[in-house]
Amino acid sequence: MRISQLSAASGVPIPTIKYYLREGLLPQGEVTAATRAEYTEAHLRRLRLIRALLEVGRLPVAAIGQIIAAVEDESLPVHQMLGTAHYALAPPVEAGPDDDHRRARERVDALVAELGWSVHPEAPTRDELAGILVRLDQLGMPASEESLRVYASIMMRLVSEHEMHKIAFDGPREAAVESVVVGTVLYGKAFDTLRRLAQESESARILGA
Amino acid sequence: MRISQLSAASGVPIPTIKYYLREGLLPQGEVTAATRAEYTEAHLRRLRLIRALLEVGRLPVAAIGQIIAAVEDESLPVHQMLGTAHYALAPPVEAGPDDDHRRARERVDALVAELGWSVHPEAPTRDELAGILVRLDQLGMPASEESLRVYASIMMRLVSEHEMHKIAFDGPREAAVESVVVGTVLYGKAFDTLRRLAQESESARILGA
Repeated sequence: MRISQLSAASGVPIPTIKYYLREGLLPQGEVTAATRAEYTEAHLRRLRLIRALLEVGRLPVAAIGQIIAAVEDESLPVHQMLGTAHYALAPPVEAGPDDDHRRARERVDALVAELGWSVHPEAPTRDELAGILVRLDQLGMPASEESLRVYASIMMRLVSEHEMHKIAFDGPREAAVESVVVGTVLYGKAFDTLRRLAQESESARILGA
Repeated sequence: MRISQLSAASGVPIPTIKYYLREGLLPQGEVTAATRAEYTEAHLRRLRLIRALLEVGRLPVAAIGQIIAAVEDESLPVHQMLGTAHYALAPPVEAGPDDDHRRARERVDALVAELGWSVHPEAPTRDELAGILVRLDQLGMPASEESLRVYASIMMRLVSEHEMHKIAFDGPREAAVESVVVGTVLYGKAFDTLRRLAQESESARILGA
């Protein structure tokens, strides 16, 4: 299809498509004449992924660039490629090097070890959770080890029983990353939304409103 | 304590504290002399809440202002006050008035009705979930009714068995809102972080990395 058709099919304006082409987020079309290029279903799908990451995932363009570079770099082993995409999706961590943060990080490391989870020792997700634990302590709503264990086991059940089989590990690498990205960002938001609906309902029930 | 002590105890610079005072996010101190005001533990706690909402919740100042106005407006019934805070915490919804969105919204309404949840008919959370379902459809990873039911029941168990008893419904209204806000934002992030740790671990296990 031509760029105008790609724009109509995706709902993305032509100048924006050209911006994505310049930034390397979208691969160039096949040049069929001096002023004409052909685009495919793959371009359409990539455009939808970019828009979903921007609008639903609210990721900055730089992070989207990292994810797409990982998809396209075929020399990267699959687990590492998925890790690159996965870490880019995480919010930036402001790891305080202070004692509170160090203690919270030790709690996270102990929890991961106790659960027997395979998580990279340098995974930024560890510091992210530690930062949240520090905040909860400061606000007087600390998370106990017992609570963390319960929450972790609920999340692991959700991931292993209901999420992981949706990842196309044995298909093309682009499909695996896409499903990880969509699963991490969009299903993450869906779970958070369902949790907030449940909270409203429970609040209404308890307060009898 | 004086403003300099409040700054030292909270780690928030004095000009920032003065900005929060001007914006009404932080109540004025008790004036004890022409150029001097006294601040209390309540100010310190409020400052920590503001910083947590800004830095962990990443909420704009306007949304923080809404939450704090709901805390301070004693004429607002508790469930409504909590709802105001709760809705302000939600990301802005770009509700597409198109057919896809309408169909997705009907699916959400049917799900909420089937579950018997008490959720306001106009709750923005409904449109938020509908928007996510539209994206998942567009990206070729649709969420089935069966999956949504499973996810909803996992989230309801999490909320009713492990979260709601932490809300101080019978204490002062400020404490109830604070715990709802902290619970919604910070525990939401903790769950999302635990989910991503579980995903990394399951990915490593499945790929044998």
